[in-house]
Amino acid sequence: MNAWKTDNLISFAAAVAAFAEGRDTPRAFLERAIEAIVAREPELKAFVSRDLEGARAAADASSERYRASAPLSAVDGCPFGVKDVIETADLPTQMNSPIYEGWRPRRDAACVRALKLGGAVLVGKTVTTEFACGRSGPTVNPHDPTRTPGGSSSGSGAAVGAGLLPVALGTQAGGSTIRPASYCGAFGFKPSVGALSMAGIHTVGVTHDHLGIIAASIEDVWRTARRIGDTHPGPDGLAGEGHELPRTRNPERLVRLHTAAWEELDADTKAAFEDHVCRLRGAGIEVVGRDDDTDIAALETALADGVGGRHDVVAYEMRWPFQEYVERHGESLSETVHAYMRRAAEITPTEHRRLLDERERMRERVTTLSRRFAGFVTLASLGPAPKGFEYTGDRTFLNTWSWLGFPSFSLPLLAVAGLPVGVQLMGFADADDRLAAHAAWIMETVG
Amino acid sequence: MNAWKTDNLISFAAAVAAFAEGRDTPRAFLERAIEAIVAREPELKAFVSRDLEGARAAADASSERYRASAPLSAVDGCPFGVKDVIETADLPTQMNSPIYEGWRPRRDAACVRALKLGGAVLVGKTVTTEFACGRSGPTVNPHDPTRTPGGSSSGSGAAVGAGLLPVALGTQAGGSTIRPASYCGAFGFKPSVGALSMAGIHTVGVTHDHLGIIAASIEDVWRTARRIGDTHPGPDGLAGEGHELPRTRNPERLVRLHTAAWEELDADTKAAFEDHVCRLRGAGIEVVGRDDDTDIAALETALADGVGGRHDVVAYEMRWPFQEYVERHGESLSETVHAYMRRAAEITPTEHRRLLDERERMRERVTTLSRRFAGFVTLASLGPAPKGFEYTGDRTFLNTWSWLGFPSFSLPLLAVAGLPVGVQLMGFADADDRLAAHAAWIMETVG
Repeated sequence: MNAWKTDNLISFAAAVAAFAEGRDTPRAFLERAIEAIVAREPELKAFVSRDLEGARAAADASSERYRASAPLSAVDGCPFGVKDVIETADLPTQMNSPIYEGWRPRRDAACVRALKLGGAVLVGKTVTTEFACGRSGPTVNPHDPTRTPGGSSSGSGAAVGAGLLPVALGTQAGGSTIRPASYCGAFGFKPSVGALSMAGIHTVGVTHDHLGIIAASIEDVWRTARRIGDTHPGPDGLAGEGHELPRTRNPERLVRLHTAAWEELDADTKAAFEDHVCRLRGAGIEVVGRDDDTDIAALETALADGVGGRHDVVAYEMRWPFQEYVERHGESLSETVHAYMRRAAEITPTEHRRLLDERERMRERVTTLSRRFAGFVTLASLGPAPKGFEYTGDRTFLNTWSWLGFPSFSLPLLAVAGLPVGVQLMGFADADDRLAAHAAWIMETVG
Repeated sequence: MNAWKTDNLISFAAAVAAFAEGRDTPRAFLERAIEAIVAREPELKAFVSRDLEGARAAADASSERYRASAPLSAVDGCPFGVKDVIETADLPTQMNSPIYEGWRPRRDAACVRALKLGGAVLVGKTVTTEFACGRSGPTVNPHDPTRTPGGSSSGSGAAVGAGLLPVALGTQAGGSTIRPASYCGAFGFKPSVGALSMAGIHTVGVTHDHLGIIAASIEDVWRTARRIGDTHPGPDGLAGEGHELPRTRNPERLVRLHTAAWEELDADTKAAFEDHVCRLRGAGIEVVGRDDDTDIAALETALADGVGGRHDVVAYEMRWPFQEYVERHGESLSETVHAYMRRAAEITPTEHRRLLDERERMRERVTTLSRRFAGFVTLASLGPAPKGFEYTGDRTFLNTWSWLGFPSFSLPLLAVAGLPVGVQLMGFADADDRLAAHAAWIMETVG
């Protein structure tokens, strides 16, 4: 069948009850993770650096707190990895660029800080593509070492998908969290833009930068997001309250988006996704697509037209600081970064503003659908991970929700040719908690 | 009389015509500035570091461009200083804290980059109080070396007020640009929050961080702001177009705010400000205060009540990254920073959100006045600079517009006991260009 099995993922949320009851400890959980890291990392190359002794000390302190029935938060004891464009005070932050070789910030990024303050256990920095937008790193796909893990959060996707970590932080301006989650068979979550603090994270495009979370379950995703959102929210804050996953909620009516990438899909992925839609319908969900509703057909066209501006907005915003990097260190930057800067030079401030206004109008248009639909469903990648490593995969299915800045999940539901492919569930601005509840319902009912 | 003389300020905008006509050059302008720096800096202590050879090379390149009638922008050849919480690639960025001793970022902050790309000439980094919020630096007031230059943009205020630079960048979360401008007899400008990019500037409070400009004339202010806004705008952009100062514009009707600080003012400053109001009225401006209009009286009360929340918002937002600094380097941080963190620990996320919502309502309330008034006028400081250096001065007159995030100018109009005191002209959100035109009218007509 075409259902992906996630048995190898190591859920933290599933282990917490055993910590509380004394049957397991964060230190023992960490040791099992380290055992998997030792076994898989030489091939996987998911990490840039690790601090296993620091992690063990943090896990011991956490174990003590559970023994005293006094965990600090819902992530106390949770081992996590951090994409190497996110600042850490105790491990170098190197952006996969010689420009930042050995660079050591004086502080943790707000998201890292929030997790550590809650007792979570930093295990290491994970491989990013160059500055989360350029040259790919050495990581391979955990389910086929001849394939890309996806980018740009390559190491975070691979480490969670391989069962080495329950949680790893990523970022997304186009498809950088959802794509590796899809290719690596992990859960991925891109919150609403502005929901979580981006302080201490290297920018790509300031209006499109999102923090991303890759994790072993929706519960792991949500505990992590909630902890960051409660401690260091972004300007808009993370919707909802309480660190528990919101109660599962039947989405009832979903829009099914084809997007411009549908025609390029291989037959097996198409079939697997159609099967999934059938299962949703079988579970009583009304799924409405462009063939059922002329409004949806018109929306698909408008989204496909509008999202074309995304690349120019990002290129324009990359002028800071990449234009200076190109001038000072041009030879050490990839052709991809150079190409962005050449494109940026052709965009006027007026055009940039116009593209942002256009996005705002599309956000309003999509939002009006919240009266009729709970959300949107499509694929999280153009089929399974492609062969090779230079190309980290197509992001057509992902660009739209990145552009809108609305929340989305990748759910590891489909198996195509023995490889994972995610189903993408997308929601409305600042309703991340509701989307998580819908995602949980889908996993429980048709997962 | 009580009018402050600004003859000692060195306006760049006033010199540009001579560059174009070949009667003067950016290099010669710079050399005059350097001569003043050499003479005054040993006492003034406005700079943390300087790069005079780099500045000479940049000024020579600029001189060549004027000879070829091809300046890069309206700031080509303009010497400028940069507050030392703003990142520079070629000079250390040290925040006036041992934590950042010798720290060298890999890039210029967006504002610095924008000016340098336009041909402006970076002269050096200027003294800040510790992280723009704590312990004061060594700078003295250029008009009385026994007095503070104000903070936190101490060196920028002193360098411009002493006639060493035409332009220096500062920042403001409470009163950190307008106050030193007032005490040092310079022009100060705090744009609308979000108008100019804050990328590469150390944060104090993310919803209250403003870039500030201290300069020798409104024209110098506006060329600088326009250049930054056109090159690296903030999320909302800088209102208006074209790098020329908007045509002067008669404000016609202004609200005069007393603020909670009026009762604490010394008699001479009160008299000087009342004289100024009389001059405005003499020039045909209708000036309406709390004694003339019950709406304004009610607004004064509401503003005084509401602004009390500002400190808590800033303290809460300082948790990142100051909480970690306190943990890792507590002994090297001032009691002021420790006190902020103790306060922050008492504020809940819900309270923070409530305070931001309250600010939003007040922004809307103030904005409704734009139908009746061109802007607001009050003092830019509680009298002239106080004696001593530890205390950088009261900011009651400044907190309100910092809290609202609306634009304001300090105009060096008043002399009190032989020292400068600024008149503060305040405008409405995202109408910075209009405010600059009003400020220019006031300088021309009653300055």
